[in-house]
Amino acid sequence: MASDYSSTPVKVDSINPKVLECEYAVRGEIVILAQKLQEELKNNPGAHPFDEILYCNIGNPQSLGQKPITFFREVLALCDHPAILDKSETKGLFSADSIKRALQILKQIPGRATGAYSHSQGIKGLRDAICAGIEGRDGFPSDPNDIFLTDGASPAVHMMMQLLIRSKNDGILCPIPQYPLYSASIALHGGTLVPYFLDEATGWGLEISELKKQLESAKSKGVNVRALVVINPGNPTGQVLAEDNQKQIVDFCKKEGLVLLADEVYQENIYVPDKKFHSFKKIARSMGYGEKEISLVSFQSVSKGYYGECGKRGGYMEITGFSPEIREQIYKVASVNLCSNISGQILASLVMNPPKVGDESYESYSAEKDAILSSLARRAKSLEEALNGLEGVTCNRAEGAMYLFPRIRLPNKAIEAAKAVNTAPDAFYARRLLNATGIVVVPGSGFGQVPGTWHFRCTILPQEDRIPAIISRLTEFHKGFMDEFRD
Amino acid sequence: MASDYSSTPVKVDSINPKVLECEYAVRGEIVILAQKLQEELKNNPGAHPFDEILYCNIGNPQSLGQKPITFFREVLALCDHPAILDKSETKGLFSADSIKRALQILKQIPGRATGAYSHSQGIKGLRDAICAGIEGRDGFPSDPNDIFLTDGASPAVHMMMQLLIRSKNDGILCPIPQYPLYSASIALHGGTLVPYFLDEATGWGLEISELKKQLESAKSKGVNVRALVVINPGNPTGQVLAEDNQKQIVDFCKKEGLVLLADEVYQENIYVPDKKFHSFKKIARSMGYGEKEISLVSFQSVSKGYYGECGKRGGYMEITGFSPEIREQIYKVASVNLCSNISGQILASLVMNPPKVGDESYESYSAEKDAILSSLARRAKSLEEALNGLEGVTCNRAEGAMYLFPRIRLPNKAIEAAKAVNTAPDAFYARRLLNATGIVVVPGSGFGQVPGTWHFRCTILPQEDRIPAIISRLTEFHKGFMDEFRD
Repeated sequence: MASDYSSTPVKVDSINPKVLECEYAVRGEIVILAQKLQEELKNNPGAHPFDEILYCNIGNPQSLGQKPITFFREVLALCDHPAILDKSETKGLFSADSIKRALQILKQIPGRATGAYSHSQGIKGLRDAICAGIEGRDGFPSDPNDIFLTDGASPAVHMMMQLLIRSKNDGILCPIPQYPLYSASIALHGGTLVPYFLDEATGWGLEISELKKQLESAKSKGVNVRALVVINPGNPTGQVLAEDNQKQIVDFCKKEGLVLLADEVYQENIYVPDKKFHSFKKIARSMGYGEKEISLVSFQSVSKGYYGECGKRGGYMEITGFSPEIREQIYKVASVNLCSNISGQILASLVMNPPKVGDESYESYSAEKDAILSSLARRAKSLEEALNGLEGVTCNRAEGAMYLFPRIRLPNKAIEAAKAVNTAPDAFYARRLLNATGIVVVPGSGFGQVPGTWHFRCTILPQEDRIPAIISRLTEFHKGFMDEFRD
Repeated sequence: MASDYSSTPVKVDSINPKVLECEYAVRGEIVILAQKLQEELKNNPGAHPFDEILYCNIGNPQSLGQKPITFFREVLALCDHPAILDKSETKGLFSADSIKRALQILKQIPGRATGAYSHSQGIKGLRDAICAGIEGRDGFPSDPNDIFLTDGASPAVHMMMQLLIRSKNDGILCPIPQYPLYSASIALHGGTLVPYFLDEATGWGLEISELKKQLESAKSKGVNVRALVVINPGNPTGQVLAEDNQKQIVDFCKKEGLVLLADEVYQENIYVPDKKFHSFKKIARSMGYGEKEISLVSFQSVSKGYYGECGKRGGYMEITGFSPEIREQIYKVASVNLCSNISGQILASLVMNPPKVGDESYESYSAEKDAILSSLARRAKSLEEALNGLEGVTCNRAEGAMYLFPRIRLPNKAIEAAKAVNTAPDAFYARRLLNATGIVVVPGSGFGQVPGTWHFRCTILPQEDRIPAIISRLTEFHKGFMDEFRD
């Protein structure tokens, strides 16, 4: 038997170079190191100067102890096992409105078959419910034929990139910093990421002049820019766009003939009283742009919000302003994968139509939701203040989403030390932080940043009673780090 | 407001041509027509000469009335709503071993968080369970690091195509007829499908001489063939490969330096006593080929088998014979989409580890399973005999999978009539069949066939009590069709 893989046919230099090029730091090398440390702690609890790994690298609330919304889980369980719906014990275990909702949902599914492939866009009745939710949110009509249910938002983003990108000459305008799904998807589909920089000094402001500058620069290099990605609320930056700014963005896309790809997965995560979420579709419609005048895709997910149901892989995109011929192509690609998972579809319909005043579950649902959101707001505030208290660190407030993205002014000695081990300075910092405290953050280089600046992304998701310990561990580490490397 | 989409930026001639090129007949135009007829029947029950649409186009058992396996759904419901696990009513509603299994599974998930993203390959404990199932099936070891859980088998197939295909010069050997996921995925990734023809005359035999011939022919055209796709049991053909044939295939891949992509999603669907399923990994290992000597990917799904849980989108691939560097690339691509849905992951672990003798649910589970499989075998036989009784139709037996793929010798007049409406003759036949009977089948041209021959794929999935009516409707239609077009 061969002692190595030299006789197998697939070699690193013979695979798709787009795969090699793609990067995804949110689950990159720092996380792989964290998993290794966790394994070591399990086998030898005294192996490290901390007793657990705190995953602040990813927006994965339930992994850190957030409880699912009871009503949603009741409905999912009943839809998974409809045989219990008419048993007397069920009334003792499940709320009356969860039973009613499960029955309503099952009625939408031919033969109540939650184990059947659905329409490739998702079960029609669930799309109707989602549209009702969108209409309630926006005050403008929404068409179930525009909804494509997907396994989380990621596959929807890939579908749009696959549709729009023909070659390296096709470009997609993306914010920097950005959520690396976008850079990864653009790389996998062989396109060009055209960066536009958010302005850290104005709370990660999105300036139209910057969009114009970068668009012109890309054009001058022969890049055909197809679409603009906007993440609102921002990931990793946490900013919430002002309405006027959104209007300018819509006009920019209209004028420049760009598809507006609106990542709106954090639409429920707003933590400051002076900001409010407005969907880009609502903005466009309120400006008088109709279906045939602007091409707009809105991505939504069950993984974020107050629900945080990442493991369910539910989500949808609402596509408007595409001709029937193009929609047919999108449908065809969706149909190759048959459909998204039905539990995720059901959950997407639930988060867009939660219990209403008067429903049996309304009070407990509201209490669960408010507790999560108000706690997230407090956590964001505490962490932001703590970060701003560190030497050389500044941090914009998290107006929304689930992250802080502090800037760290690293001493030259630290930058040199990072260079010596062939690592980006922010990755060097993140690795040191992990080894010292068990806290996992993602280096800013994974999201993109103004060259010469260094950041990291840290979620606000550890349970509230853990925040003081995280702050003290982080503070102590940072002090030690600066003491070691201060110029 | 513009009356058309001329002012929107995305046009058919400006999208990715690979998307345009891709085809997926299983949900193609015949199915879209069927959905239209169904809508018409709903609004006007007398609109057509039938009262319902019978979807025989797709392996979607629960859409046609197959009931899910109770034990599996019990476990899923409990994992969805673990809060009920310690309630007294639960014991009255759920079997004792489903409660035990749910607890075991939840123990594998940090914090019992079924709503959290998991490891990008899937929850480790579930991969352990899947490996135990594979070991029990094959008698050879299986490593949880080799398992990648996916949302059904389709995304796993896409991942491998994405890894292997660099350009149109990269080829993938695919059976003809084939399941069109393969042609669609190869088209989307910009590669070349290198066809090898299954021999209808020998029960869809897979001849090594044909593989060699097509490989040489592709090479002579400058195509670099990377992998061989084998679907066993066959889709759409239903054949089950003999062990000796599998050994030849393994040797062929070894000798030619090809990755063997083994679609084994129908491994539980075998209907004839003289055939048995053997995984390609078992075959390769039994021939003495170890991990580092042959590159092999096995695809499995929760959508098929006796469980037929299509809507749950669970599945996995087991990859062996890839170097750590390549596995790292596969992991990276998996991580961009974070993870597959947890319910699907749980279900994949259940189908690979169903109740065992002595478990409370074993008897009811076995009864449900045996009833489904024996009924499918009877349905396959009845439909096969009926098809062979039709003028000009021959049909190989369905040894396995969920389909029959009869050959229809169409009269020249029918072929001319099809030409006149710019349609493939088998699509013409399928459309006529649908309009006359409500039965939806997929034209052979969607799967590929020897030029000049015509087929259709028909599932064996309608409930058994409907089979006689289907046979009589089909027989009557076929007679009328032949009367109309007989030369």
